[in-house]
Amino acid sequence: MQKKDSWLLPEGIEEVLPENARHLEHLRRKLLDVFACWGYELVIPPMVDFLDSLLTGSGHDLELQTFKLTDQVSGKMLGVRADMTPQVARIAGHNLKHDWPTRLCYVGTILHTLGDNLEKTRSPMQIGAELYGHSGLDSDLEVIQLMLEMLAMSGLVHVHLDLGHVGIYRALSKQAGLSEQQEAELFDVLQRKARTELTELVDGFGLADKHKQIFMTLPKLNGGRETLTRAVELLADSDDAVKQALSDLHFIADKLAERFPDLPVNFDLSELRGYHYHTGVVFAAFVPGVGKEIARGGRYDNIGEFFGRARAATGFSADLKLLARLSVLSEGVAGRERVCAPDSADAQLQEVVRDLRAAGRVVIQQLPGQTGSAEDLGCTAILEKQNQNWVVKPLV
Amino acid sequence: MQKKDSWLLPEGIEEVLPENARHLEHLRRKLLDVFACWGYELVIPPMVDFLDSLLTGSGHDLELQTFKLTDQVSGKMLGVRADMTPQVARIAGHNLKHDWPTRLCYVGTILHTLGDNLEKTRSPMQIGAELYGHSGLDSDLEVIQLMLEMLAMSGLVHVHLDLGHVGIYRALSKQAGLSEQQEAELFDVLQRKARTELTELVDGFGLADKHKQIFMTLPKLNGGRETLTRAVELLADSDDAVKQALSDLHFIADKLAERFPDLPVNFDLSELRGYHYHTGVVFAAFVPGVGKEIARGGRYDNIGEFFGRARAATGFSADLKLLARLSVLSEGVAGRERVCAPDSADAQLQEVVRDLRAAGRVVIQQLPGQTGSAEDLGCTAILEKQNQNWVVKPLV
Repeated sequence: MQKKDSWLLPEGIEEVLPENARHLEHLRRKLLDVFACWGYELVIPPMVDFLDSLLTGSGHDLELQTFKLTDQVSGKMLGVRADMTPQVARIAGHNLKHDWPTRLCYVGTILHTLGDNLEKTRSPMQIGAELYGHSGLDSDLEVIQLMLEMLAMSGLVHVHLDLGHVGIYRALSKQAGLSEQQEAELFDVLQRKARTELTELVDGFGLADKHKQIFMTLPKLNGGRETLTRAVELLADSDDAVKQALSDLHFIADKLAERFPDLPVNFDLSELRGYHYHTGVVFAAFVPGVGKEIARGGRYDNIGEFFGRARAATGFSADLKLLARLSVLSEGVAGRERVCAPDSADAQLQEVVRDLRAAGRVVIQQLPGQTGSAEDLGCTAILEKQNQNWVVKPLV
Repeated sequence: MQKKDSWLLPEGIEEVLPENARHLEHLRRKLLDVFACWGYELVIPPMVDFLDSLLTGSGHDLELQTFKLTDQVSGKMLGVRADMTPQVARIAGHNLKHDWPTRLCYVGTILHTLGDNLEKTRSPMQIGAELYGHSGLDSDLEVIQLMLEMLAMSGLVHVHLDLGHVGIYRALSKQAGLSEQQEAELFDVLQRKARTELTELVDGFGLADKHKQIFMTLPKLNGGRETLTRAVELLADSDDAVKQALSDLHFIADKLAERFPDLPVNFDLSELRGYHYHTGVVFAAFVPGVGKEIARGGRYDNIGEFFGRARAATGFSADLKLLARLSVLSEGVAGRERVCAPDSADAQLQEVVRDLRAAGRVVIQQLPGQTGSAEDLGCTAILEKQNQNWVVKPLV
């Protein structure tokens, strides 16, 4: 009856075994507790949703990544969530109808039809926090700080931050009079940082030299704080939207420098992560040795529209599985005491076992006829009767 | 751009809002901690799996309830898990290859294509514990006790327990010489407790009077402890398998009476919950006012076979969402202090906020220009500057 390889899992789909699961659970609780301390309340969006809802606004980029199902009950198309952000936006827009800021957080497995090139997983455990209803930069700053706090709590060091602003490219495209099609093509080339293609493309657009020059220089606006100064000079002739975006980045950079003087911050004005979805400041965190961002976020003010309420929004998310893998944190997780209770009908033993467990200690009951010693069961101590009393005796 | 009813969720698919999510998360942690104290280690099976794996052994009953997907990577059929038990059995069989008992627990959302009649949900949050590698009754007893502990920790009172043993019907069918087809038909009628149909069906089988009589009486073997005595008399002529099963139930009943003298236990020898899957003692817990079991389990010794290793197994599961809804527990969840920090650039304030959060207290930062007072934000206290110091002042 055994089928060869019947234990195999689909590519990029993982099961988490006890040691890693304990670590993941520990980190999960720790991070949700941090979010709670900042006033971010947990919500639990469903694993599947109507496809329309999942792919709205933010979501069209995700269409290819979303597994589709037919709902036997409604006859409609469902999708397995490939991103929880639109679901959380719906909750904020529809269920929590007030004008003041709403802070929500979430954690849950999402599913992708295809793994990305770097991380092979198709089932990340998305964890994130979102702040709705405030359009000022202080809310961007709050979520960036919370993201950094999440990474610190995960035990990650040598984090560096990338900052950008999708408003710059958006305004420059408009100012240069690019068609929608041209804007999309240029966006694609900028994303891939393909220089030769960039020259050809911009030449082909027949733009005024001034605009051409700007698009050619955009990929070079990448580096430390001096990048912003260079950008202000280079884009001196640009319209107010560009100036506002640069001033926004200045503000965020100043505040971050004040609060995290040791944090390396990189500015990249041609980085357009989540361009179709974001509307303002965008950011991502990196650590050495990992070829992709370990957390990312930004402002996305229009996402609630589909659900009847466009609200200002900013937030971030990460893959909890990736954070746990990178995390060096282990206190309170490994090395926990495990007590082995012998197989005995002694009523007093049962009471001692109950009391130990009620005090939060791990007690494993030996069963009649079982194989495996206390050590085999991973125990660090045993219960032993001494002078009519059951006592916990450490194994050496 | 707003689509009418775009916030609607598919029938039986729920999102969990902050208040309930907080309660659910609290209960989730509490129960996983109880399982850990009994030595049950957390594992996290994947949300999707190859369909073959999901539907193996135990799973064929679940075929109709499983959403199917085509895997673009392998071209194979995947299923969204409709039951995590087979997945956990695979983990126990394949990854944890030792001879001594293995104790595992899990929690996660599962998905059903159709809701059942009583509970409309199609996305329960399955929580459960399984004990592999021990075939004696003490392991059944351990998991029943742990299930009762889970219900007690959920704040549920007036729990009563149903006990049965699928080995009785299995042995009686064999003894009476029923064909596989007859066994299945009779099983179906017994499950529905359809008396008239039962008479017709049994008459049609052309059985010896003795066997006919037994099957007609089986549905009446339902009640308190005296049911077992009646069963022993009625089934005195039966083979050893039946006698063993009855003796098993006696043993479990005796031990439970000793340890839970106030627990009402009902014996139902025609109740065949999960018959195709179970192999021994089966049990379920009920509370008044809920028309279906709130937790269920039993022995299922063959499930690992498909994964290359048939291991003795017993365990239980429940829907955490249902437990949370029924639960009266609320300590430490509601009424938590929330402190509002005013919008101020004061560096000392930032430090106080950081310290309060580090101590696990909830602090919500007012943002420049936001609407909503401290009370609107659900705060119970504010930070106020008194004599050069920021102090937490309760709101009355």
